[in-house]
Amino acid sequence: MSESQHCQSFEVRDYECDMQGVVNNAIYQHYLEHSRHEFLKNLGLDFAELTRARINLVVIRAELDYRRSLVSGDRFAVLTRMERISKLRFAFRQQIVRDSDGALILEGLIIGTALNERNRPFLPAEIDAVLC
Amino acid sequence: MSESQHCQSFEVRDYECDMQGVVNNAIYQHYLEHSRHEFLKNLGLDFAELTRARINLVVIRAELDYRRSLVSGDRFAVLTRMERISKLRFAFRQQIVRDSDGALILEGLIIGTALNERNRPFLPAEIDAVLC
Amino acid sequence: MSESQHCQSFEVRDYECDMQGVVNNAIYQHYLEHSRHEFLKNLGLDFAELTRARINLVVIRAELDYRRSLVSGDRFAVLTRMERISKLRFAFRQQIVRDSDGALILEGLIIGTALNERNRPFLPAEIDAVLC
Amino acid sequence: MSESQHCQSFEVRDYECDMQGVVNNAIYQHYLEHSRHEFLKNLGLDFAELTRARINLVVIRAELDYRRSLVSGDRFAVLTRMERISKLRFAFRQQIVRDSDGALILEGLIIGTALNERNRPFLPAEIDAVLC
Repeated sequence: MSESQHCQSFEVRDYECDMQGVVNNAIYQHYLEHSRHEFLKNLGLDFAELTRARINLVVIRAELDYRRSLVSGDRFAVLTRMERISKLRFAFRQQIVRDSDGALILEGLIIGTALNERNRPFLPAEIDAVLC
Repeated sequence: MSESQHCQSFEVRDYECDMQGVVNNAIYQHYLEHSRHEFLKNLGLDFAELTRARINLVVIRAELDYRRSLVSGDRFAVLTRMERISKLRFAFRQQIVRDSDGALILEGLIIGTALNERNRPFLPAEIDAVLC
Repeated sequence: MSESQHCQSFEVRDYECDMQGVVNNAIYQHYLEHSRHEFLKNLGLDFAELTRARINLVVIRAELDYRRSLVSGDRFAVLTRMERISKLRFAFRQQIVRDSDGALILEGLIIGTALNERNRPFLPAEIDAVLC
Repeated sequence: MSESQHCQSFEVRDYECDMQGVVNNAIYQHYLEHSRHEFLKNLGLDFAELTRARINLVVIRAELDYRRSLVSGDRFAVLTRMERISKLRFAFRQQIVRDSDGALILEGLIIGTALNERNRPFLPAEIDAVLC
């Protein structure tokens, strides 16, 4: 298990808000994904390079608890921790926290695996090493 | 509980696919949201009208199980059922099913509520009537 | 020059609207792109297959005149015609027309070319044939 | 005319890339829009506040020249200048420049106006003052 926590800073962009004037539900998944990819990049795993090498990191389950809404101009951080949950699966525990008051906006549990060229679960050595 | 099931037809658009050549994870939430809004519209509840009336339907939890990936040109249906889970909360059970072979692509459980102008949970009579 | 006109039907989805309650500017480009790809598919050119074959159709210039806004639930059509403008370049003339009243919503002129693996302009025989 | 130039820094996020492995054409409009809104915010005009006050800033024409593509992880800046082009219209000249080598990625000319509650062109005093 990786004990380290990654922190990624963001600011809401107006095009991410929908007619309710708040960030659209789906956009939070974009924030979480970008944070995971930056987290992995810091560990030496580049998502784009893996994709070109035909190793596809994939999400198999997402649990998202929406606590509050973000609005135009809000600054926030996505906190990400990663842990192994089985031989071939890993989990990201992610929180979105608003800068202005530390309010918890969203909590997410994202479970993923890696697939090789034949769409078979397959954990490459690089990821395996990171997750030890 | 509403026993009826709503079926919404879609076709993957190329801009919805990411560098892996499959539909990006967040986009499935768009498919699910659009289907829920069409489902509600069929019940006489227009999301845009509700928003203008300051009644905000909001998602408070989403559980998404990604079974397979959709690719460019895939046709699929989103099946949606709605049920009440408490006085002020309702759940949508949604499935994405590929047309060509009936394969289950994604299963989702989306829990929502409605908020009034002061951001308090509040179920308007129209929704209450639908959920009886 | 191809005289034929392609017509693609759409309906605005709520997640495509921004805080102004209208379809966000960038989303119109998605509508236009999807229509071009469907137009090309009808001519036997599959964008995803071309991409896998390392032939990249790319946009080099877009001119977009926004006449009116689309709102939640609007049904509309994208009309697309294609013409050759030079040995290696082709243009799409596109119009977005609202179903309810025939109002012109947007006019676009999209100029494209194709690039081969070395990022050099290159018009494959299939496209050349279509554009004769 | 405002002589000042606004510079907004960005980094490509993987979800912004499409199956070609480059940033999707429509996404550049998001980058440009966000930069314009930040530019205006620096001038004391908040897009979200204007929207709530029923003053809608709208794009009426966009000319976009795509010179090169951005890929995963690219850092870049959007440079924005604004000028008045008529009593009720203003133009933004925008450039996207890659950090690593200063390469020009895209040039855009975005023409806008403001609409009041009755959808009539209307330039509020605040904007008028900025554009003098």
